[in-house]
Amino acid sequence: MFKKILIANRGEIALRVIRTCKEMGIKTVAVYSTADAESLHVRFADEAVCIGPPPSKDSYLKIAHIIAAAEITNADAIHPGYGFLSENANFSRICREHGIKFIGASPEQIERMGDKATAKATMKEANVPTIPGSDGLLKDFKQTKALAKEMGYPVMLKATAGGGGKGMRAVWKEEDLQKAFESAKQEAGAAFGNDGMYMEKLIEEPRHIEIQIVGDQFGKACHLSERDCSVQRRHQKLTEETPSPFMTDELRDAMGKAAVKAAEYIKYEGAGTVEFLVDKHRNFYFMEMNTRIQVEHPITEQVIDYDLIREQILVAAGVPISGKNYTPKLHSIECRINAEDPYNDFRPSPGRITTLHAPGGHGVRLDTHVYSGYIIPPNYDSMIAKLITTAQTREEAIHKMKRALDEFVIEGIKTTIPFHRQLMDHPDYIAGNYTTKFMEDFKMKPEVQE
Amino acid sequence: MFKKILIANRGEIALRVIRTCKEMGIKTVAVYSTADAESLHVRFADEAVCIGPPPSKDSYLKIAHIIAAAEITNADAIHPGYGFLSENANFSRICREHGIKFIGASPEQIERMGDKATAKATMKEANVPTIPGSDGLLKDFKQTKALAKEMGYPVMLKATAGGGGKGMRAVWKEEDLQKAFESAKQEAGAAFGNDGMYMEKLIEEPRHIEIQIVGDQFGKACHLSERDCSVQRRHQKLTEETPSPFMTDELRDAMGKAAVKAAEYIKYEGAGTVEFLVDKHRNFYFMEMNTRIQVEHPITEQVIDYDLIREQILVAAGVPISGKNYTPKLHSIECRINAEDPYNDFRPSPGRITTLHAPGGHGVRLDTHVYSGYIIPPNYDSMIAKLITTAQTREEAIHKMKRALDEFVIEGIKTTIPFHRQLMDHPDYIAGNYTTKFMEDFKMKPEVQE
Repeated sequence: MFKKILIANRGEIALRVIRTCKEMGIKTVAVYSTADAESLHVRFADEAVCIGPPPSKDSYLKIAHIIAAAEITNADAIHPGYGFLSENANFSRICREHGIKFIGASPEQIERMGDKATAKATMKEANVPTIPGSDGLLKDFKQTKALAKEMGYPVMLKATAGGGGKGMRAVWKEEDLQKAFESAKQEAGAAFGNDGMYMEKLIEEPRHIEIQIVGDQFGKACHLSERDCSVQRRHQKLTEETPSPFMTDELRDAMGKAAVKAAEYIKYEGAGTVEFLVDKHRNFYFMEMNTRIQVEHPITEQVIDYDLIREQILVAAGVPISGKNYTPKLHSIECRINAEDPYNDFRPSPGRITTLHAPGGHGVRLDTHVYSGYIIPPNYDSMIAKLITTAQTREEAIHKMKRALDEFVIEGIKTTIPFHRQLMDHPDYIAGNYTTKFMEDFKMKPEVQE
Repeated sequence: MFKKILIANRGEIALRVIRTCKEMGIKTVAVYSTADAESLHVRFADEAVCIGPPPSKDSYLKIAHIIAAAEITNADAIHPGYGFLSENANFSRICREHGIKFIGASPEQIERMGDKATAKATMKEANVPTIPGSDGLLKDFKQTKALAKEMGYPVMLKATAGGGGKGMRAVWKEEDLQKAFESAKQEAGAAFGNDGMYMEKLIEEPRHIEIQIVGDQFGKACHLSERDCSVQRRHQKLTEETPSPFMTDELRDAMGKAAVKAAEYIKYEGAGTVEFLVDKHRNFYFMEMNTRIQVEHPITEQVIDYDLIREQILVAAGVPISGKNYTPKLHSIECRINAEDPYNDFRPSPGRITTLHAPGGHGVRLDTHVYSGYIIPPNYDSMIAKLITTAQTREEAIHKMKRALDEFVIEGIKTTIPFHRQLMDHPDYIAGNYTTKFMEDFKMKPEVQE
């Protein structure tokens, strides 16, 4: 087993990893930027090394500094957390070259899953369903029409240089295709000076549902069931839950098998997540694979009595997994508490936390690196806490979340607590009736003075 | 279902009950003494009524004030918590007479289990094993000798007026009995002016292991497995765990059956605990039954995914139980954090909490009514928090507790956190090798400056 692990990250995930290391009797090294000297991850680690100032490219992304910190402190492994260098094949390779175990995927696995096109091609090879579409650019309308017929309507036409919805058209039936194709092409040419088009199947009422997997060094993988992460704002997840209210036993089984197949096909080592889009007919399509721990991993831990960070460390140390797939016995929800003002377009709200009172009691878990008096630096992601509730049923977990949100006191800055309170009261959320489009129509109700 | 529940208690248990009521959509009424106006249970309830000043006899024990508060606020049920009026048959009866549901045992059940002699007689009727002993006072040495032979050695002679070990003798073989009997009798007569003696079987290496039961209004009961509460100081539990490290499947089955038999014999309604002494040969003997929720109930909740307060409320509302017995799937430990100085004979340490930082993360639960800035009044029990860790194994739960204790910051007062840290490092505790005598030999190591 490792003697000392360096955590190449900050914030709550650095603390999360330190906690498990402590429980396993493994020494820890925190690295930190000058902006993070007062963070709990620095305080709770056995050793801490400053690796530079913000922004991240001068510290948390500075591979040379991190490797030096590991060598100085004699760390025999590095846990990269999420974000930063966690999916950087080069970093994984440099760790290997320095004889330091990277607790995560190998450089080859990261490369295979890192860019979307390669990942999609790999998944096609493994017979994991991907979103049907043109392989590369569309040649002409004739080819487009034939392909659309083959994939089935609706389809989505997209400009290869596109962005902001320009050069995009959803087409629901064949007679509309030609007009859409021509106008989109013209629009793209005008907007981007590039009228190259490609086409994908349009996913109706899409849900973002991901499968947690764990693979060991012996080519074996298992899945730990799903997380529904459809509540997103500009592709940022706001809250997640497991099981998905949209899930059926058959769908879980099929998605779980696909995720395990994906993992075993590339002999994936470590914890990873296979993200799928699921349409209203419960067809599912591979989106991407995250070759690292996810922010939302605690809800999986809560429903299957598992410590995923511990599992990552064990697998990295060469311990084989049991290979058993897990299904949730309970229901768990995570709300990401961000230092943002939900009444003001979620504008970041860094600054000093003057008062913090944590919710507690039955079924409540809080993962945070902040405390009363802590100054949130403006340099990083605005997430300051993850509030997780777990209960026998979804309804109870929602009620528990409402209760815990009501108890949670953070003063001195704005947070997304009011957003989550309104979300937990939203009829569509309560009904489990939401897709990735949910936030497009969500409006905060006026602030209530209490 | 009840519309509004008054919680006739204070501190963490009042908050505990309020939390579950909120989650069930039931309104709550807190009652409080003038010393408790700033407690969280007052802040988190929907309504709060001041019922008098400390000491408790003028407020939390003042039945008329509590009933008046319930009537003023239109509460249709009262939850008594633990301590105070929770096992007061008169209070239970007065609630009934006022048409307010007492969430607990009926007056008849409390009376039957309330005093030890009646409870023991009832359990004998129900064929639940009790500690063998003389029924009442010993007549003379001849009877004593015959009875000791029948019960089997070792035996314990006790003065009926006794206390502080005076007039007590442990006797391990027959030839020592006469001398012990005569000297104890003489000592008792001199010390108390009453030389009446009784005798009980001496329980060797006793452990305090209790079984959680739940009974419904239809005469059905089930058990939720055991809690080992042997680590006690002057009969005050300090830490509890489930499963007991001393438990076997056979013993759990036998003790569980006995506890269910005890509950069903008296048609027990609600959550209750049957306390047993277990000797080194794994014989178990009924000690007493607590007809209320216990302080240490969370560890049971943690290992079986249960909300015991919710269950109490459901049962009180007439919902039948499933009748299924539960066995722990995980291991859970509770440390009672008291405002006491463990380096100074556990002397109470009331006062202002200047800083509080709660531990968190995977497998950590904290139940507390205090917060940064809270002033602990000198009038009540010194328990200010219950820290609970849960993991797959006992070893992991201990490591998690150590980690959580290390994170827990309470400044301004002395707490028992240092005691628990030393306990979790104690070889006998780690080995699960402890009895109710454990604390007699426990010495705090000198304080380490950090």
